[in-house]
Amino acid sequence: MMPGPLEGIRVLDLTTMVSGPVATMMLGDQGADVIKIEPPAGELMRNVGIDNRGMTSSFLCCNRSKRSLCVDLKTPEGLEAVRKLVATADVLVQNFRPGAIDRMGLGEGTVRAIKPDIIYVSISGFGETGPYADQRVYDPVIQALCGLADIQADRDTGRPRMVRTIVPDKTTSVTAAQAITAALFARERTGQAQHIRLAMLDTMVAYLWPEASSALSFVEREADPARGQMGLDLVYETKDRYITAGAVTDREWQGMCRALNREDLLEDERFKTASARFQHVAERREITSAEILKWPADDLLKRLKAEDVPCAPILGRRELLDDEQVRMNEIIEVHDDPTLGPVRQPRPAARFDATPAEVRSMAPFLGADNADLMAELGYTEDEIAGLTDRGVLHRRPPA
Amino acid sequence: MMPGPLEGIRVLDLTTMVSGPVATMMLGDQGADVIKIEPPAGELMRNVGIDNRGMTSSFLCCNRSKRSLCVDLKTPEGLEAVRKLVATADVLVQNFRPGAIDRMGLGEGTVRAIKPDIIYVSISGFGETGPYADQRVYDPVIQALCGLADIQADRDTGRPRMVRTIVPDKTTSVTAAQAITAALFARERTGQAQHIRLAMLDTMVAYLWPEASSALSFVEREADPARGQMGLDLVYETKDRYITAGAVTDREWQGMCRALNREDLLEDERFKTASARFQHVAERREITSAEILKWPADDLLKRLKAEDVPCAPILGRRELLDDEQVRMNEIIEVHDDPTLGPVRQPRPAARFDATPAEVRSMAPFLGADNADLMAELGYTEDEIAGLTDRGVLHRRPPA
Repeated sequence: MMPGPLEGIRVLDLTTMVSGPVATMMLGDQGADVIKIEPPAGELMRNVGIDNRGMTSSFLCCNRSKRSLCVDLKTPEGLEAVRKLVATADVLVQNFRPGAIDRMGLGEGTVRAIKPDIIYVSISGFGETGPYADQRVYDPVIQALCGLADIQADRDTGRPRMVRTIVPDKTTSVTAAQAITAALFARERTGQAQHIRLAMLDTMVAYLWPEASSALSFVEREADPARGQMGLDLVYETKDRYITAGAVTDREWQGMCRALNREDLLEDERFKTASARFQHVAERREITSAEILKWPADDLLKRLKAEDVPCAPILGRRELLDDEQVRMNEIIEVHDDPTLGPVRQPRPAARFDATPAEVRSMAPFLGADNADLMAELGYTEDEIAGLTDRGVLHRRPPA
Repeated sequence: MMPGPLEGIRVLDLTTMVSGPVATMMLGDQGADVIKIEPPAGELMRNVGIDNRGMTSSFLCCNRSKRSLCVDLKTPEGLEAVRKLVATADVLVQNFRPGAIDRMGLGEGTVRAIKPDIIYVSISGFGETGPYADQRVYDPVIQALCGLADIQADRDTGRPRMVRTIVPDKTTSVTAAQAITAALFARERTGQAQHIRLAMLDTMVAYLWPEASSALSFVEREADPARGQMGLDLVYETKDRYITAGAVTDREWQGMCRALNREDLLEDERFKTASARFQHVAERREITSAEILKWPADDLLKRLKAEDVPCAPILGRRELLDDEQVRMNEIIEVHDDPTLGPVRQPRPAARFDATPAEVRSMAPFLGADNADLMAELGYTEDEIAGLTDRGVLHRRPPA
């Protein structure tokens, strides 16, 4: 396996659920040595999803390219082992509720005393103070506060709607991975270490703003941010499936008219210019919807493509596995794991031509790397066996 | 202003619209010297959004913390100037359709001959080959192909729905910023330069997978990925506004019953355990919805909070500006710009305690930095004036 861009970096991952784990997984795919530290019961996500010999699909998809150390931090010996590990690490990431990590004996001060130049990362839902700071983080609560549920509100009733995938969690992951990488770059160049704090709420407000809230930018000249989101509901029904198609420019509109055999619309004053089409959007949608419904999807998509009108079938998640573009891009890989059998995973999206990011391993079973990691820290086989007997270390092999 | 983590890095930004510009804006906020290179007409986004003296809100929100060089690349003199700039750059980012950048004379080979260790970045919609590669990129087309419209499908009718914010564009931005930063780290450590290729489609498949498609991971043991997304529709109507509230654990459920003055439900066998509640989700939602509707939001949110039930009002985008948590986190800043007046912008989400990321400047007017940048490259004032007269350089000052 070729070295990734983060080769040589060691990350201690004390995070749970999604926002933290997916962030460190990205770093692991890029070659960092990510060590997931879990309590004897394992983290909660090990109980979520489809079970395969004791490995669940949800845990797997948030924790590949990592090693696992399962250690009871409530024992002095367990804490001591992790502190030894801290001395070897470049990054520590935690997403407990504010204050918890200090009570666990791994607060920034303690950690920095052991490893002065560590990048210390705290991911939270709402920040470290404020009315929500101590509330348990559910993705819908962030969606509610950050404006996402407002963006998705039903056009007719105004009733807010949630997005049915955990955009706040996952956007926080990518944002955290970027920030950690930037801090590693700065440290490499200047020796400067630091603490990065990232709240999901802040992440989402910043993420949504450039387009969804930009209308609020000029103070005293604000406009309704919901205006202009019309174009995004381009879902059409054909004879046999749903598709999307968009005709924004004059050329695209003309192409759509030809594809639909409705050249008569080319001369229709209501649709001749972009602004006229915007003004008569309801009539236009009614006409195009009715025409599109007359065609089988394959035929129509071919005709639209031939006219350079952007279009695509709306794919289900199973279907996309077989889509020609998805296959050509080799987005979905099948890894033949000796324990789990064939496992589908998306490859890391960014293709580095010199230091590839790749799925380096499936997620580890609980405590799979206890012995290796403890040996790296200088523990003898006997000591490791003793710690295991006393329940300080724990291991749950495949079922 | 304190140096950011990417201080000392120069990025040539040849991108347009959102995916590329927001990526380089993040790098600019983190202290990179981002130079946006635009044709004499300016990029398209300069025409989108609310106009303020010739600066639009949409352009502003995707292009702050950058400088602007407006140059006609179709002239030999213009191309020559940009090639001189290439020699000073660490990163070049472009998101033209496949092949276009080569025809412009700034393909990877040409650029690398001038600056061998540059990080060359190509962002695309669908990748460089395949049935969609040459199609114009509209966000809904990516949403259709990547599974997002499927995720958002109406539960009753199965009709797919788009998410009404451009998640593919913006997720690609953050993913690109992370990849670029990782490549900069690798180059800093090993001297290795490279080409990063990132497709929006790949980005979205990888982004959605950990939770929305994880059920497809184990080959031959797949489950319906739509199962388990139920929890995300937690929108309730109170007497006076919409809120969200979630009761997942036994304690949270019990807390919700008490907050609603429905202690009788504590003994209801249909809701006693998490699995029983999952089984009777429809009845439970019906009962809680009816109860919640009896309360004014403020009162009920206080009661739910007192019982440790995660909850929040569902905020509109204007409203969130005044939310107490948003204010305490100082997410939204107001910058007093001498030309534009007071401008609201979200601060960069990640807080670095040693090398802060911050909004370093508003977006530049077209060609605002022509003179400075050309002088840095060694052009004399006369030469710059001549290039301006001949239309090679162009500048559009505030109206």
